[in-house]
Amino acid sequence: MAEPSGDRAAAADAAAAADGPDAPGTAEPLFDRVALIGIGLIGSSLARAIRRYRLARTITVAARTEASCAKARDLGLCDLVGTDLGPIVAGADLVVLCTPVGVYAEVATAIAPHLAPGAIVTDVGSVKQLVVRDVAPLLPAGVHLVPAHPVAGTEHSGPEAGFAELFEGRWCILTPAPGTNEASVERVAALWRGCRSMIELMDPKHHDVVLAITSHLPHLIAYTIVGTAVDLEEQTRAEVIKFAAAGFRDFTRIAASDPVMWRDIFLNNREAVLDVIQRFNEDLTALQRAIRWGEGEALFDLFTRTREIRRSIIEARQA
Amino acid sequence: MAEPSGDRAAAADAAAAADGPDAPGTAEPLFDRVALIGIGLIGSSLARAIRRYRLARTITVAARTEASCAKARDLGLCDLVGTDLGPIVAGADLVVLCTPVGVYAEVATAIAPHLAPGAIVTDVGSVKQLVVRDVAPLLPAGVHLVPAHPVAGTEHSGPEAGFAELFEGRWCILTPAPGTNEASVERVAALWRGCRSMIELMDPKHHDVVLAITSHLPHLIAYTIVGTAVDLEEQTRAEVIKFAAAGFRDFTRIAASDPVMWRDIFLNNREAVLDVIQRFNEDLTALQRAIRWGEGEALFDLFTRTREIRRSIIEARQA
Repeated sequence: MAEPSGDRAAAADAAAAADGPDAPGTAEPLFDRVALIGIGLIGSSLARAIRRYRLARTITVAARTEASCAKARDLGLCDLVGTDLGPIVAGADLVVLCTPVGVYAEVATAIAPHLAPGAIVTDVGSVKQLVVRDVAPLLPAGVHLVPAHPVAGTEHSGPEAGFAELFEGRWCILTPAPGTNEASVERVAALWRGCRSMIELMDPKHHDVVLAITSHLPHLIAYTIVGTAVDLEEQTRAEVIKFAAAGFRDFTRIAASDPVMWRDIFLNNREAVLDVIQRFNEDLTALQRAIRWGEGEALFDLFTRTREIRRSIIEARQA
Repeated sequence: MAEPSGDRAAAADAAAAADGPDAPGTAEPLFDRVALIGIGLIGSSLARAIRRYRLARTITVAARTEASCAKARDLGLCDLVGTDLGPIVAGADLVVLCTPVGVYAEVATAIAPHLAPGAIVTDVGSVKQLVVRDVAPLLPAGVHLVPAHPVAGTEHSGPEAGFAELFEGRWCILTPAPGTNEASVERVAALWRGCRSMIELMDPKHHDVVLAITSHLPHLIAYTIVGTAVDLEEQTRAEVIKFAAAGFRDFTRIAASDPVMWRDIFLNNREAVLDVIQRFNEDLTALQRAIRWGEGEALFDLFTRTREIRRSIIEARQA
């Protein structure tokens, strides 16, 4: 998916403005002031979607470097941007952590004293037990924590890589702790519905197990296989690049994803990831053995069963 | 890649007809009569490309079942079609094996008595040492064997899945034995250039090593990971399908490839495939260990190096 052209984006904005009264985007904005902490692929896509569908009156953005602040400003992603977290979250009724999950504790510590009473804190991270562990204990009483994970992305990173349509037709998983203020959960759900996502509620531990197989293992495997190719001797490596169209290139796309984000995911979903690696390894060993001993039927059976899953995904419109 | 619409195909045909005298398609056809044995994704794409670019006067097709013959006829892919190999290859100046590689020996035995003197036999298979092993000894003297591998494909199978553009801008690797008639090698190269492919000459053993990493290992890994997911308990499996967009779906696409074709590839490139599985396994074990012991730097380093390969592939226009 490419960044939409200015024209296409403008046309979509006009269409959003022309929507009927029931459509998100014409009603009163859901939030007065949304603060985005981090402005990479997901943060900047969210900023664009919030703008397009008029989900907030004001968007503020915190970035780690002055260079990122300048990009956010140049791209017109927000009303206020800075590296200092205090002024960015002050007065926000929604704060969204869009940083790699490894710095959540640090960010939560920095924003805690500046959060408005009754503010909602949410995130977009790919692991959810760690939000309970790292963020919840640091927030002041009266602030509502509603962890979220929009299941969407591309292999591109940075503020320029975002686009408003990223979340369209995709799932957003919310993992609020039992007893969380219901109105706050509903407002976060409304934000993502406003971005054209579908909502799923899940227990954080279960989320981390499911995502370990649908996302973390695929990324780990892709990084591994591309790494295996990188280590080949020079001439073979050149040929691997030349003949990548035979299957390898799909892995290189996944293995081009943001390194910091993925390091943090693996380190923070260790248990579930190690468990699925173990299962995967057993299955690979069985195939390896079937190839060694020429067991064609075992190979054929597996290769036939895996086709079914593809069909289910196409039927579920997630292909 | 989708099947082009009728309009687009017609426009491309018109453009081909209007090409200058140097363009493939307007000169005298390269071949008088091309016989395609097998009419799956590759065979039917080749038939379409031969038609569009006028690379042969007559196309004959052999299919394994009457149903496939009917499809080839309905799709207008050829001038003559049948299940009996003799009449299909009789009088052909080019015979292309487009079956799974596991039946090459059987096919070569069946066609050998019917091949015209001076005919060229080629193939489109993904492993090349086996052509030397299984096909070469069965051909009569005076027939020229020029093994070929168009490095192109999709996850779809069957005569309906083909399209004339499949080979455009892709590599086709030829692996003729030393001493092969040069004019025959050149005519096979011209066929693939006529399909808008680029030509590479390679030793069959080296081909099988390179493709083991760029194609066979990626497919094996994709089949494995999707198989691991298939074996999950019912509820988790439903969620894996639902949240496939997080990385998993790319693997399911690859793992939907033709089971017979892939079984035959693994069984016939055993040595090279087992070698790359071994390397891959060592690398995965190292990553597993880094995750277990929280070695963030090792993860970050690998994830950064793998990005480079993606960049090289994009620069090589094979992305």
